[in-house]
Amino acid sequence: MQALEEHYKPFLSSRVEARKFSPFWGQDLPEGLIPHPKPIDLGPGLPHEGFFPLESMHLNVVEDPFQHTSYNTKSRKLHKPAPETSTHFDERRFVSDKLSSESAVDVWRYEPDSPGVIPLSQGLQYTDTAGMKPMLDFCRGFISYAHPPAYDEWDVTLANGSSDASFKIFETLCDSSVTVLVEEFTFSPTLAIIAATGGTAVPVKLDITADPDLQGINVDHLTDLLENWTQGPNAHLSKPKLLYTIPTGQNPTGMTLSLEKRKQIYALAEKHDFIIIEDDPYGYLRYPFYDRENPGYNPYALHEYTAKDYCEKVLAKSFITMDTSGRVLRCETFSKVFCPGLRLSFVAGNKFLIKKLVDFAEVSSRAPSGVSQLIVNNVIQKWAKNHSSPQEAWLTWVMKVAGHYTHRRNMFVQALEATEAFGKGLFSLAQTTAGMFLAVEVNFDQFAKALNTTERSQAMQRLKLITIEEGVGIILGINMAVDRHYSLARSFFLRLTFAFAADVEELQEAAVRLSKAFKRFATEF
Amino acid sequence: MQALEEHYKPFLSSRVEARKFSPFWGQDLPEGLIPHPKPIDLGPGLPHEGFFPLESMHLNVVEDPFQHTSYNTKSRKLHKPAPETSTHFDERRFVSDKLSSESAVDVWRYEPDSPGVIPLSQGLQYTDTAGMKPMLDFCRGFISYAHPPAYDEWDVTLANGSSDASFKIFETLCDSSVTVLVEEFTFSPTLAIIAATGGTAVPVKLDITADPDLQGINVDHLTDLLENWTQGPNAHLSKPKLLYTIPTGQNPTGMTLSLEKRKQIYALAEKHDFIIIEDDPYGYLRYPFYDRENPGYNPYALHEYTAKDYCEKVLAKSFITMDTSGRVLRCETFSKVFCPGLRLSFVAGNKFLIKKLVDFAEVSSRAPSGVSQLIVNNVIQKWAKNHSSPQEAWLTWVMKVAGHYTHRRNMFVQALEATEAFGKGLFSLAQTTAGMFLAVEVNFDQFAKALNTTERSQAMQRLKLITIEEGVGIILGINMAVDRHYSLARSFFLRLTFAFAADVEELQEAAVRLSKAFKRFATEF
Repeated sequence: MQALEEHYKPFLSSRVEARKFSPFWGQDLPEGLIPHPKPIDLGPGLPHEGFFPLESMHLNVVEDPFQHTSYNTKSRKLHKPAPETSTHFDERRFVSDKLSSESAVDVWRYEPDSPGVIPLSQGLQYTDTAGMKPMLDFCRGFISYAHPPAYDEWDVTLANGSSDASFKIFETLCDSSVTVLVEEFTFSPTLAIIAATGGTAVPVKLDITADPDLQGINVDHLTDLLENWTQGPNAHLSKPKLLYTIPTGQNPTGMTLSLEKRKQIYALAEKHDFIIIEDDPYGYLRYPFYDRENPGYNPYALHEYTAKDYCEKVLAKSFITMDTSGRVLRCETFSKVFCPGLRLSFVAGNKFLIKKLVDFAEVSSRAPSGVSQLIVNNVIQKWAKNHSSPQEAWLTWVMKVAGHYTHRRNMFVQALEATEAFGKGLFSLAQTTAGMFLAVEVNFDQFAKALNTTERSQAMQRLKLITIEEGVGIILGINMAVDRHYSLARSFFLRLTFAFAADVEELQEAAVRLSKAFKRFATEF
Repeated sequence: MQALEEHYKPFLSSRVEARKFSPFWGQDLPEGLIPHPKPIDLGPGLPHEGFFPLESMHLNVVEDPFQHTSYNTKSRKLHKPAPETSTHFDERRFVSDKLSSESAVDVWRYEPDSPGVIPLSQGLQYTDTAGMKPMLDFCRGFISYAHPPAYDEWDVTLANGSSDASFKIFETLCDSSVTVLVEEFTFSPTLAIIAATGGTAVPVKLDITADPDLQGINVDHLTDLLENWTQGPNAHLSKPKLLYTIPTGQNPTGMTLSLEKRKQIYALAEKHDFIIIEDDPYGYLRYPFYDRENPGYNPYALHEYTAKDYCEKVLAKSFITMDTSGRVLRCETFSKVFCPGLRLSFVAGNKFLIKKLVDFAEVSSRAPSGVSQLIVNNVIQKWAKNHSSPQEAWLTWVMKVAGHYTHRRNMFVQALEATEAFGKGLFSLAQTTAGMFLAVEVNFDQFAKALNTTERSQAMQRLKLITIEEGVGIILGINMAVDRHYSLARSFFLRLTFAFAADVEELQEAAVRLSKAFKRFATEF
């Protein structure tokens, strides 16, 4: 711990010094004092759990995503699509059967015999800021199982979703003296967070390509940037202390860094002494490249992977698995694989930095929602009864979700490639192996008129309007650029997601509309 | 709104300027463009609700706090105390009856016919940062009902509990140039928040007394402090821009400001142009003074109040009800009257400042837990079916909680006054009319030995150790002082809460132990 502190203290932002939380209720006892064996505590300002209006909570949990689409009768309260008048569906009866089944998760006020389960009396009460013990234990176990760090002195803390984690990390590590390397197209709210701390984001060139060895951060560019910092265009800025990266299923490009590139980037971090903030919301949604010969290939549906296989052979390796000096902060979230409304995520990293994040939470948000914690924890613990560990139980669900994403990706790419516009070469797809996004690149060289970069950039704005008329919502790549000028020539792509559509039919219809939009677009130029 | 902006822009901290969130998905449409009537959205990076593992959620809601204490048979999973082996209690059967009853709250995936209810598809999804519409509507309606502001341009935003609200407010209004007035004893984590923003807290003298006209902030002192700032002890600090106050059931003193004092303080705020941050977690736990002639008097148990009476005659008036210029930020929380684990609170204030708080949330925590929002909202909506408005339904529950606090306070004070130590005059009680706390003052002048202030202060530390030995947890007043030196002579009190004990018997036992501790204490000096 002392070595960690010595190395990472200089990374702390100017704000950290002022964070001094000393609980008014704490006290060291003098030697020899024998506390009463059964104290009555009139100290803590907590309401007793008897004041809470919930006596128990009962969760009707599904075994598969979208399992309701196969039900014979449908209720407007449970199923979409459902007939406008589903008068014959008795939801109460339906659910009372499900709640008496083995799948239901009952949350009782107390759990005297199940220490891994969070009862209402804890989940609805004030709790430790870092998170409730069962939930923290699960997260630690999960990191050990899926992405074991290459050193010992690491820990985790919960946060209120990944945006909150990013905010806490940047407020702790970044201020007006700090330069942050960021993939040139990125989840732009993070740029707003960096700006709010006073930091400066510098774009790192991305390779947007179907070649799995080349995808993502251009390591030659990054090496050159760092080696020649004082001679480069950013010489007026301090050398970067932080790299923020979404290494798997990158948002918005969908790129996934190869293991080789990860090793090279980690080596650069060691050499130039920067911290890697690895934001990995999409990493568990992993799939093989789309195969035109076998468009329906879905290894999850074929049960090709055990949980262990999935972690060892399928998932892209986290930077933390090669981290020997504690310089990686790995951000995970339950938003994509459980649900976003929980606002629940966690960060794994070295104990010194994790402590600093908790210290910050002590003087700001405090703990994430206990209800969110208990739902995730107890559902996993329930599933764990049929598995050898909570981690494997959780991954079994996660693989089902990944299987659905794989199917959607397959069908969507197939539909896009079947369109007239694709046939004419008006767009191409930067295929991905992870996540929720697909980058659709506009092939301006196939257009009748030759357009320069500025004209192409204006044309992209026009394309956006055409898609609105044609009824397909897209995101322009340029809207997610760190520096629009720097990335302009690489910005002629759309970000599409296949995560939000109701079903495959909707994705297929969207492909048809997109084709129509592209054909109109091409005739205008 | 422009007038608000002109007046309150100078109050913003130096950090606010850097908060620039522009969503990458937003777009103004050019005139004449006709969007597709049924668009398919491939833009937003949200998982479809079919991916969420919860199909429905069912809440077993009680009608009264602690209602289980009257059940004949008890389960270790639901009731405390319960026999160690309660083999005959079939929890599943018990709950399936309750879930089929009218009291159960069913949360379905969709609520096509009930716009005021939050379905799982929304509650588990990403949502607007300020909060979900039904929840915001409820909070606005509640403020209008219980504490109507004296001006029109106000709004509310949700936050992740009151600590989070305090943090967001101080980060937005306070930096190293700002002085904050704070009651000399206060919820000390707020002091840590102020310090973390770089601000300086200056204590305001409190009157800790049973006299309802005198309780709380000493207005003469505050007036003098402000009128003579540049000649006073704080002349090296800027004139205060902010007052942080817990006006009702103050923590830790239990004091409640009279209406007259509130008017005087608001007038000072107008004159000296400072913002009042009103933190009111305890305000709804209101009760009459303890009456020795009628120790069991509990107006709630006698159903003396309607919801309207309670708001008009019982609750202490919020500063916002006298606010004509938008200078009050009122912080409410569901922690004390629903449960703390939700991490759900809201702030009411002028639209300009509320917008700034939401802007900050956009680059930090984003929205509070959707699960927490839907639980509170839907439970209230369910109760509302038997009332004329959701606000009245909620207040009906709140009054039940207040009734339990009244009973606990009554029985605890009765038990304390019946003790030998009280009879000997070793301590006295600064009686309260709201909240969870009771200040117990040590009567050093009744002690055999005459102690000076320093000796008394050391003796208090000794008293703390004796209480640990005797088995009663207390908080020393001095631990919650803004400035220990400044408040030393007024710090010889303990903060006791009657909120956390399991029942009245425990409070009575605690009184006996406290008496024993006081007697031991008195013999040592």
